[in-house]
Formats: sequence, structure tokens, C-alpha cells
Amino acid sequence: MGNRAPLPGEFALIRKYFAPLAAGFSGALDLEDDACTYAPPAGHDLVLTADALVEDRHYLRSDPADLVARKMLRVNLSDLAAKGAKPVGYLMTTALGPDIDEAWIAKFSAGLAADQQEYGLSLMGGDTVATPGPTTLSLTALGIVPSGRALRRRGARPGDRLFVSGTIGDGILGLKVLKGQLFDLGASHRDALADRYHLPQPRLSLGAALLAGGRVTAAMDVSDGLVADAGHISESSHCGLIIHADRVPLSAGAEEALAGDLDLLPVLLSGGDDYELLFTAGAGFAAPDSVTEIGEVITGSGVRVLDRDGAEISMRSAGWQHF
Amino acid sequence: MGNRAPLPGEFALIRKYFAPLAAGFSGALDLEDDACTYAPPAGHDLVLTADALVEDRHYLRSDPADLVARKMLRVNLSDLAAKGAKPVGYLMTTALGPDIDEAWIAKFSAGLAADQQEYGLSLMGGDTVATPGPTTLSLTALGIVPSGRALRRRGARPGDRLFVSGTIGDGILGLKVLKGQLFDLGASHRDALADRYHLPQPRLSLGAALLAGGRVTAAMDVSDGLVADAGHISESSHCGLIIHADRVPLSAGAEEALAGDLDLLPVLLSGGDDYELLFTAGAGFAAPDSVTEIGEVITGSGVRVLDRDGAEISMRSAGWQHF
Repeated sequence: MGNRAPLPGEFALIRKYFAPLAAGFSGALDLEDDACTYAPPAGHDLVLTADALVEDRHYLRSDPADLVARKMLRVNLSDLAAKGAKPVGYLMTTALGPDIDEAWIAKFSAGLAADQQEYGLSLMGGDTVATPGPTTLSLTALGIVPSGRALRRRGARPGDRLFVSGTIGDGILGLKVLKGQLFDLGASHRDALADRYHLPQPRLSLGAALLAGGRVTAAMDVSDGLVADAGHISESSHCGLIIHADRVPLSAGAEEALAGDLDLLPVLLSGGDDYELLFTAGAGFAAPDSVTEIGEVITGSGVRVLDRDGAEISMRSAGWQHF
Repeated sequence: MGNRAPLPGEFALIRKYFAPLAAGFSGALDLEDDACTYAPPAGHDLVLTADALVEDRHYLRSDPADLVARKMLRVNLSDLAAKGAKPVGYLMTTALGPDIDEAWIAKFSAGLAADQQEYGLSLMGGDTVATPGPTTLSLTALGIVPSGRALRRRGARPGDRLFVSGTIGDGILGLKVLKGQLFDLGASHRDALADRYHLPQPRLSLGAALLAGGRVTAAMDVSDGLVADAGHISESSHCGLIIHADRVPLSAGAEEALAGDLDLLPVLLSGGDDYELLFTAGAGFAAPDSVTEIGEVITGSGVRVLDRDGAEISMRSAGWQHF
């Protein structure tokens, strides 16, 4: 187990670090039972989503533990946002590797506490074990939506318009910055991009507004990359999608990076970890300021990315491959 | 990544092996979205529980993959049983190690399919990633109970009687058999004990009956070991517990093992992985045939294990320590 000081036992860790995260949620039973209880309010469905994160694969061992915690939570909140859901709480299992010491856990739970407050949710339950391998985190997030109203991937129709929130490509550029690449970029751009990679901004308010407005026909969050995720909507909705590359919103840092290396364009469009909302909407949709129209839904299948002259741009990669 | 054939990509694995496990659950949206939806029936609370399993720590790499899957599911169903809950479904994240090939996944999902049918539940969602370390599985199980009626650990009162279902100690003896110990035992006993370790029998019907009967004051499942889990009830209920060792029900295999080595008694009473229900009940409780009265609740704190002469038995270990 390396040179670290021995960790407190499982029950001591739970009492000291995790039970306080569940104090605001009566159904968590102070984590003293092996299960928790919850009833969604009348007229609501639960929305559930789960993600696993592996050290040095989904985050870096050197990443600050509070940021790892917040990113894990926010990635799942982004999935809830894409459904138009309001977050309620989460269950978390942690398989802690040999390099984890109590300071790491203290910082990790401080990160969870900060984001619980920011997003109004609570730890509900979980499990803590040890592993000889890389630390592996798994989180199941719960949210609620008005009954039968959860946004889906499968409703896009030819003639609908395609929108995306925020800016695209910052996640992959942030990762490049953290890997020591893009050293020509200005320091403030580098910092901003690294922040985008470390700390996604789940678009919960936007998701709830899109659901309430009633004109959105398909929605998801951009986690695998814009083009790959557009492909998911295309496949689920049985229609084709056109993306106009010149309309895809870019941050100032991404603009500068692209100006220095035009070959970055397909990287931006196919890189993951943006956690913006990608959605289609029918007639009568009033787009809020935070979203940009980037394309349209057509009959057929697949995703075509066009330049400003209407010529197709070839994508080097259709998104993250996990294997 | 060793010598294995490359795995299909994440999406192909999900389509081929995991989506069929979700086919019976409309809210799982065929796993094509990143989230699923569910609404418990009117008048019911959700019960949620989560567990993590690490290869070669919670199960052996050489264990058949279908049994690993079924044990993972059943361990969580046992937590639901202890709440009196009826299972609904589960979310699962899998971090697959380098030694996992497609045959393993096929067998693993066949095990899940078998137990889904046996217990009437469905896969609802999840995530599949790769890890360079040991395979790590995390499961969040959902069940339902009549509103406000979930069994808890914290209601035991002095004067209540203490009961346990089935037989105790078979889990730890089964593990010893699988490790090549207890070679003096007869082959049929060895097989039966190994089966108990591999394939817990979650006491779902009993849990539901205990909830319906209304006399049970505290309940949990025996996963950390009888004495340690009695300690959890004692601590949560702020009372003491007496266990009469000679009343603790043992299987024929455990009786034979104990006859050959009397020092095994504390091991049986503190070994984990039995997945029986341990509970306290007040006046008027009619014990079903499947349970045995093993002790009583007293004022004070802690758990005392007494022999047939009323002398205290010292426990070598108060249960599994995960760290």
C-alpha cells in the first residue's frame, strides 16, 4: 500500500467525511443504513444517470481532489440538464487506490460539499472500498422532471433547427493545455481553457427552460464531442443533421488557437468534455441568448459538417472511443 | 492490454449485451439516452442502495463471470430485502480491466439476465469504461416500499427479541473452501458452502413479510458478519444486544466444520457474506419457520455473545474491515 499513512476504516471515513454530505437529506438516514429512501413529489418522474471515472483515464492523478469531485458531480448534472431535470441527490461508490490519503479524501469531500451547495443537492448513499488499482469513482445522480416530460434524444424531425449552448471545443483544448501543449496561447486563455476542462458548467437552468418551453424535440449534452453527439441524436431520431462549422460558437481562447492552427477545427468539433446542451427545436422556438443555431435537421441519416462554402469537412475522429 | 482480442467499442458492447437487459423497462429508453426515467407507484417510497466490487478483493478473478454478476445483484437485493422493499431495477457502471474479453462480458450479462428474471427487475442505465487496474463494478439498486414504512436499523427497544433468518457462517466457510481450506469436510458440504459464498439468497419475501407484519423494530442484512452487524443495530438503536451463540442456526456443513475445530465458532459468528436478515421484534411478533430467535435487546450498549452457560465468548474479529 505504498508509504501513505493508513486510512481510517470504512465506517470512520463515512462518519467523518461522507455523513455530513448527507445531513441535509432525511431519507439518507445519516448513511447509517445500507439504503436510503426517497419519494419524488406528486406529478414528477425520477431521472437517473450513472457514470464511472477512472484515475489517469478520466481525470489526472495530479488533479486537485476537490476538482475531481466537482467534475464527477457536474458531468452527471449535465446529463440531468439534458433531460430538463432538477437535481435531487446522488449515490456514490468510491474504490480508493493505494495513493489515496486522508488529505485527499478531505479535499474530495470539500469539493462535493461546495457543489452540493451550488446546485442544491445531497449525498444519499453509497459504498467505500479499497482497490490495489487506480482509484475508481462511480456516481448515480437523481433528478426530477414533470411526469412524462423528460427531454429525449429521439424526437428530432426534418425541418427542425439545431442549437448548441455556450462554446464548443474548450474541453479538448483545456486537456491539451494541461498536457503542456498549446504553449503559444496567452496565459489567460490557457487558464480559462484548463478551467473549462476541470470544471464543467452543467446547463441546468437552460435545460429546465427548454423543457418548459415545449418546443424542443431532442436534446443531449455534449460529452463525447459535438459531431459524435449529433450522431447520437441523428441515430435515435432516424434523421440526418447538418452542422455549419462556421456557426459553431467558439471561446476567445479557441478562436486564438484555431487562428494559429487551422487543423484544429475538426479537433474542436469532435473533442469531448464540453458539457454544453445540443438540441433540436421546431417552429415557434424562441432561442435564448445563451444558445447558437448551428444547423438543421434533414431527412436521411448521419451528420454532415459543412464549411461556409457548403463543402463537407472531413472529421479526423468521430468522438472519444472509450476502448 | 495483454493478449486478449480487442473488445468491441463501448456503444457496441451496450447494444449487444446491455440493451437487451433493459428491454423490459420502458423508462430505460433502450439505454440510448444518458439517463432513464422512473416514477414509483402512488403511495410508495423508493429505496436505493449502492455497492462497489473490486476484482480479487470482493470476488476472485477465477470466479465464473455469471456468478460474479449474480452475486453483485444479489448483495444489493439483500440490502433491499432488509428494508422490506420490492426490487424494481438497477443502474450499473463497469470499469473493465485488461483481462476482460468478450466471452467474459457475454457470460456476465447472461448471469444478470438470469437473476433479472428470477427477481423481476431490469437494468435501467449505467456506464461502461476501461481501466488498466482490476475490474471494478458498481451497482445502484432501486426498490419500492409503502410510503414511510421502510424497515430501519434504529428502532430496537429493550425487551425486543433478536432473530436471524437461515443459517450463519456459511459465507466465510464457503470462502475458506474456495481458498482450498477445510479439506476434511465432505464433498457435498464443501460444494454447498461454496455455493452459499458464490450465490447469496436475498431474503426478499421474508423482508416484505416482516414489513407487512408491523412488529419488526429494526432490521438489516448480515453482510459484515453477525456480530458486527448486530453492533450496527445496537449503535443505531442506542441499546445493547445479547446473542446466545448456541442458538445461532448453523448449516450441516458448518456443524461438521465446527465439530472438527471448535475455534471456528468466533469465525462463523463474525465472518461476512451470509446475506441473511437480522432483526428485532416486539411483543406479538409471530416468527415464521425460516427464522430463529437468537437473543434479546437490553438497555446499555454493545453486543455480548454468550455461551450456553451464560459466559461471554470473546470475538477474534468484529467483522470485515475493508481497509
